Amino acid sequence: MTSLTEYLWFETKQRRDLVRITDAIAAIVERSGVREGFCLVSAMHITASVWVNDDERGLHQDLWDLLERLAPFGPDYSHHRTGEDNGDAHLKRTLVGHQALLPVTDGKLDLGPWEQVFYAEFDGQRRKRVIVKVLGE
Amino acid sequence: MTSLTEYLWFETKQRRDLVRITDAIAAIVERSGVREGFCLVSAMHITASVWVNDDERGLHQDLWDLLERLAPFGPDYSHHRTGEDNGDAHLKRTLVGHQALLPVTDGKLDLGPWEQVFYAEFDGQRRKRVIVKVLGE
Amino acid sequence: MTSLTEYLWFETKQRRDLVRITDAIAAIVERSGVREGFCLVSAMHITASVWVNDDERGLHQDLWDLLERLAPFGPDYSHHRTGEDNGDAHLKRTLVGHQALLPVTDGKLDLGPWEQVFYAEFDGQRRKRVIVKVLGE
Repeated sequence: MTSLTEYLWFETKQRRDLVRITDAIAAIVERSGVREGFCLVSAMHITASVWVNDDERGLHQDLWDLLERLAPFGPDYSHHRTGEDNGDAHLKRTLVGHQALLPVTDGKLDLGPWEQVFYAEFDGQRRKRVIVKVLGE
Repeated sequence: MTSLTEYLWFETKQRRDLVRITDAIAAIVERSGVREGFCLVSAMHITASVWVNDDERGLHQDLWDLLERLAPFGPDYSHHRTGEDNGDAHLKRTLVGHQALLPVTDGKLDLGPWEQVFYAEFDGQRRKRVIVKVLGE
Repeated sequence: MTSLTEYLWFETKQRRDLVRITDAIAAIVERSGVREGFCLVSAMHITASVWVNDDERGLHQDLWDLLERLAPFGPDYSHHRTGEDNGDAHLKRTLVGHQALLPVTDGKLDLGPWEQVFYAEFDGQRRKRVIVKVLGE
């Protein structure tokens, strides 16, 4: 069994952002030498997600619209009594999901034709981390 | 370490459908010979999900009602400027989640008493794929 | 390759509850002896979830408010024709997600600074189970 663990760091300029990370993950998989295995991609901060979907600008707008409709940014969260203002970001992470497990087959990410991996930031403008862990042989 | 990768193909007659795939996955796990491990089931197309829940017709209707309420089919998605009409399907996949990791214990899927695995199609009537990858020993 | 499978049992006093299980999982990881691997935590009953987020009481209230808004408890689910009254609980599990895969690095859970793991119960007051399966070396 072989494993490799690396961390991707992000500090987005905007509070909310989508960053395509498929290539960075593919490079880690290649460095790992794993031919058959799994690659976990998981957002380590609790106001960010990992999203596997299409790299299409209109769809990204639709995602933001959906999340703003279901868990809007606003002042009325109980979490804000702690002094935070990011209650919506915790809920957005919950709805999108904070991780993906990518199959590695024959040494490559085994993704569908349109699957791209994104880091989804809901409360950025500070340094945050994603773990990428490859396990296999 | 042992691994086996297979792909399930779907071409649903209806645009939206739930297809129970627990038995097909169990057969792949058996073929793999893995006694202790993980079985990843992941929808490779970005308008489909994998859902682990009850095989009960009423509940399935409740799921469709929920998804139609939260991310309705309609003409008003930014994604549609590309000529597509399936913006809702991308969002439904996001809310349901596109994969499940099934534990394999003593050579069998280690599921709860009512857990059944479904392929959830949100934009069907064409050939689409799910990867099933078993890893363990 | 090494693996260890254990089951956590819950019987919450309230119908809906969040139970922090990070320490119980860390103890299982330690017992497994795995230094590099994955730890799957998955709710085996279809009206419960696993949630990785902040251990902050206000945020927990915000989560309950969100779920009650998106998939309210009520009498009007098709699933209830079977005699059940927990249609909302199945949908809440769907929105939150029923599992998390935790990375194990250097013999420890490799979580972010605020990541805590919770069992989320949506229809409790009876015995229900979570599988914890560690795989690695």
